[in-house]
Amino acid sequence: MDDGRHSLSNQRLREQYSAAGFGGRVGWADRPALLVIDMADAWTTPAEQLGSDLSGPLSSIRQLLRVARLHQVPVFFTTMAYDPELSEIGAVLRRKLPHTETMVRGSRRVQLVTELGRRANEPLIEKARASAFFGTNLLSMLIDRRINTTIVTGCSTSGCIRSTCESAFNYNFHVIVPQEAVGDRSPSAHDAALFDIDARFADVMSVAEVLEHLGRVPAVV
Amino acid sequence: MDDGRHSLSNQRLREQYSAAGFGGRVGWADRPALLVIDMADAWTTPAEQLGSDLSGPLSSIRQLLRVARLHQVPVFFTTMAYDPELSEIGAVLRRKLPHTETMVRGSRRVQLVTELGRRANEPLIEKARASAFFGTNLLSMLIDRRINTTIVTGCSTSGCIRSTCESAFNYNFHVIVPQEAVGDRSPSAHDAALFDIDARFADVMSVAEVLEHLGRVPAVV
Amino acid sequence: MDDGRHSLSNQRLREQYSAAGFGGRVGWADRPALLVIDMADAWTTPAEQLGSDLSGPLSSIRQLLRVARLHQVPVFFTTMAYDPELSEIGAVLRRKLPHTETMVRGSRRVQLVTELGRRANEPLIEKARASAFFGTNLLSMLIDRRINTTIVTGCSTSGCIRSTCESAFNYNFHVIVPQEAVGDRSPSAHDAALFDIDARFADVMSVAEVLEHLGRVPAVV
Amino acid sequence: MDDGRHSLSNQRLREQYSAAGFGGRVGWADRPALLVIDMADAWTTPAEQLGSDLSGPLSSIRQLLRVARLHQVPVFFTTMAYDPELSEIGAVLRRKLPHTETMVRGSRRVQLVTELGRRANEPLIEKARASAFFGTNLLSMLIDRRINTTIVTGCSTSGCIRSTCESAFNYNFHVIVPQEAVGDRSPSAHDAALFDIDARFADVMSVAEVLEHLGRVPAVV
Repeated sequence: MDDGRHSLSNQRLREQYSAAGFGGRVGWADRPALLVIDMADAWTTPAEQLGSDLSGPLSSIRQLLRVARLHQVPVFFTTMAYDPELSEIGAVLRRKLPHTETMVRGSRRVQLVTELGRRANEPLIEKARASAFFGTNLLSMLIDRRINTTIVTGCSTSGCIRSTCESAFNYNFHVIVPQEAVGDRSPSAHDAALFDIDARFADVMSVAEVLEHLGRVPAVV
Repeated sequence: MDDGRHSLSNQRLREQYSAAGFGGRVGWADRPALLVIDMADAWTTPAEQLGSDLSGPLSSIRQLLRVARLHQVPVFFTTMAYDPELSEIGAVLRRKLPHTETMVRGSRRVQLVTELGRRANEPLIEKARASAFFGTNLLSMLIDRRINTTIVTGCSTSGCIRSTCESAFNYNFHVIVPQEAVGDRSPSAHDAALFDIDARFADVMSVAEVLEHLGRVPAVV
Repeated sequence: MDDGRHSLSNQRLREQYSAAGFGGRVGWADRPALLVIDMADAWTTPAEQLGSDLSGPLSSIRQLLRVARLHQVPVFFTTMAYDPELSEIGAVLRRKLPHTETMVRGSRRVQLVTELGRRANEPLIEKARASAFFGTNLLSMLIDRRINTTIVTGCSTSGCIRSTCESAFNYNFHVIVPQEAVGDRSPSAHDAALFDIDARFADVMSVAEVLEHLGRVPAVV
Repeated sequence: MDDGRHSLSNQRLREQYSAAGFGGRVGWADRPALLVIDMADAWTTPAEQLGSDLSGPLSSIRQLLRVARLHQVPVFFTTMAYDPELSEIGAVLRRKLPHTETMVRGSRRVQLVTELGRRANEPLIEKARASAFFGTNLLSMLIDRRINTTIVTGCSTSGCIRSTCESAFNYNFHVIVPQEAVGDRSPSAHDAALFDIDARFADVMSVAEVLEHLGRVPAVV
C-alpha cells in the first residue's frame, strides 16, 4: 500500500495522497512575486558546511529573474544572519542547528551570490529561521504590493523552501515551485520534499511552464 | 553519498546531517507541557478519508496523559474545524487539500476520541492549519503557564506534527517527540518525517524515556 | 504648544502632528471589506459592565452592511469569548481586565446583536484579545478574498477598534474608520482615540463618505 | 460621568474604568527583561522632526540599565530603519507616516544614543512598526531567555511604548512601565497614553519602585 519512494514520479503514491484529499491543483492568481531564498555563499559553495553544487538552480533562477524584471514582477531575496556575539541565536536553535553559529551578519557566507544581480529596489530580507515569513516583514511587503501568488525558488528544498511554502500557503497565497529552480544537498531529501510540497502547499511545475506564464503576466506597478 | 532511506535508524544519513550542522541534542528545560494534536475521529477511524489505525499512538498518549496529569504538567488538545458554509476555508486551502471540506465544526469527525478523557481545564484548540500555533492562542497560553518545553504527540507525523514542531522550535521552545506517540497513514512518510523532525526541530525519543522524565518533574502550578 | 484636547476638530494639534510627519491621507484601494467589531450584548447593553448606548453606531453599521451586501463587499464579524473554565484566559489578562471572566463562550453576552442579521457566509471570528487579528485567521481570510482595504466599525473606539486598526495598518491594509459607526463608553476616550487612529493608522471619515464610496465599488466576487 | 482628562491622577476616571473591569494590578513574575525602545537620535534630538527633549527618560533608563546589568537582567534595544531605496516601506505606511522616509538604515538618525552604552551581547532589534514585536524576533529571544516580565522604557509613550506594551500583554507577559523612563513629544498625549496603558496592558509604576524590585531579583543566567 505504501511503496515508500517519495518522488513526484511515483504515480501510485500520488494516487494514495489524492484519495486522502491532498495534492489538488491551485494554479495562479493574477499578481505574482518571485522569492529567491538563501542563494548565498554558505549554501552555494560546495566546500562550505551547508554547501552543495547549486549551479543548476542558480541558472534557472537567473532565467526567472530576467523575465520577472521585464514584466515588473516584484522580486524578494532572503539570507540568514545573526549578530557576531550570537546573542540573537537562542540556546535551542544553537544546539539543534550548530551551523547557525557560522552565519555571522556581514560575513561573506551570508552574502547573496553576485550573479543574481540584486537591484537596490529588490528587498533583501534577513531571516533567522527557515521560513522567510518568520520574524520578518515579508508578509507586509507582499500585501503592500497586492501580491497573491508567490513563486518560491532557491535552497534548500527540504528546509527553507518547504517552510516558506508552508507559511505562504497558510496565509492563502497561491504558491508555485519551479522545480529546477530549487536545490538541496541531498538528492533524496530534495525528491521527498518536492513530493510533500506538491501534496500539501504548492503546485510544483517546470521552470519552462513558469517562464511561459510570467511572459503573459501584465506589468505589475 | 546519499542512500535515500530517511529513517532514524539510517546511521550514514544521520552522520551526513550531523556534518552539515543539523540534528544536535537540545534536551529538556524545566517546565513541560503535553500537546495532543488532532486525535479526532477523522484521523483515528480507518474508514475515514484521512483515517488510519492509530491505536498504538493512542495507547502511548493515554500513558503520557496519566503521568502528565499526576505531575500537573499542562495538557493541550487540538482539532481542526471550519464553519458549515466553508466560508472560513479559502480557495487555496480548499483546492490543495479538498479533505478540509469535510471538517465541519460540531460534526463527529472533528470531535476528540473519548478515550482521551479531556478534562474541562485542558484547553481544546480549534486550528485551521497544520501547525497548532497558526491562527490560534496556543502561544499565549504556553507563555501564561511559563512553559519552555513542548511534548508533541498525535497525528499525522508528516503533517500537523511536523508543522507544530517547527513552530514551537521557531519560538525557542524545547521540543520533544515521543516516537510511539505519533502516527501517520503512510509508514514511509512517518519514518521520513521523524528523521526530518529530529534533524531540524525536536529531539525524538522513546515514550519510555519521556515517561521516565515526566515522573521526575516537580509539579507545575 | 500642546493644548491637550485630543479631538479631530482640534486644528492646532493636527498641525503639530502633521509637522512631525503623522496623519497623512492614505485613501482607498480597490478591494474593501467591512469589519464589524464586537457588536455583541456585553457591549451594546447599557446595563452590562462593559455596556453603553451604541444605538447610533448600530444604526450606521446597518446602513453600511446594506450597501456592502449589495455590492458584494465581504463582511466579517467578531466577538470575544473564553471557555467556561476560563482556562484559556491567562493570569495576566484576567488580572488586568477582570471583565474577561464574564465573556463565556456560548453565553448571551458574547452573541452578536440580532439586528445585524449576520448571514451564514459572513465569518464570525471569536477573538481573545482587542485586535481582531491576534490569534485568529482573519488575516488569511482577507488575503484569500484579495482584500486591500479594511473598513473598521463597531466598539470600543479606544480599545478593540484602535487595536484592530493598528494591526491592519501594520500589515499594509488601507484602513478606513467611518466615525459615526464606532462607539465607546467614554466620550472623551472616543474623541482621543479617533484623533490617534487618524494620526497613526487609518483615515477617519464620515459614514456618508464611506457609503458614497461603497456605492461606486464594483462587485467583489 | 466622563470628565475627560485622561491622566493617572484623575481618580474619578480610574474608578469608572475599574467599575468596567479594567486596570487591575498584575504585578511582577520572576524573570524580567528590560526593553529600551527607540532611544535614537531621531527621537532624542529636539531639532529633529520627531524629536523632543528626552533627557529625563534617558537619565531614568541609565539608572535602570545599571541595575539590570548588575543583576544580569537581559536588556534589549530597538530602533527603526528602512533601506535607502525605501522599498521596504509600503505605500500605506509612507503616506500615513511620512516621517518614516527619513529613517534610513545606517544613518545617524537611527543610531542609539551613545550614553546608553549598549553592550555587544544586548540585542539591537531593528523594527519597522511601532510594536517591538511586529516583524521581529524579539518574542523568540524572550522565550529563549525564559522571560515572563517585560519592563518597557523609551519613547514615544503614545506610540511605540503603547504598541509594545499591548503586544507583550497579548502574549501574556507581565508588563511594567516605569513612568519617568518613558517620554513623548506631547505632554497631553503622554498623560493620556499612560492612563490607557495602565488601564489595559501594563502596571505603570515609579522608577524608584522598579529599581527597588530589580535590586532584589536573583541573577538571571
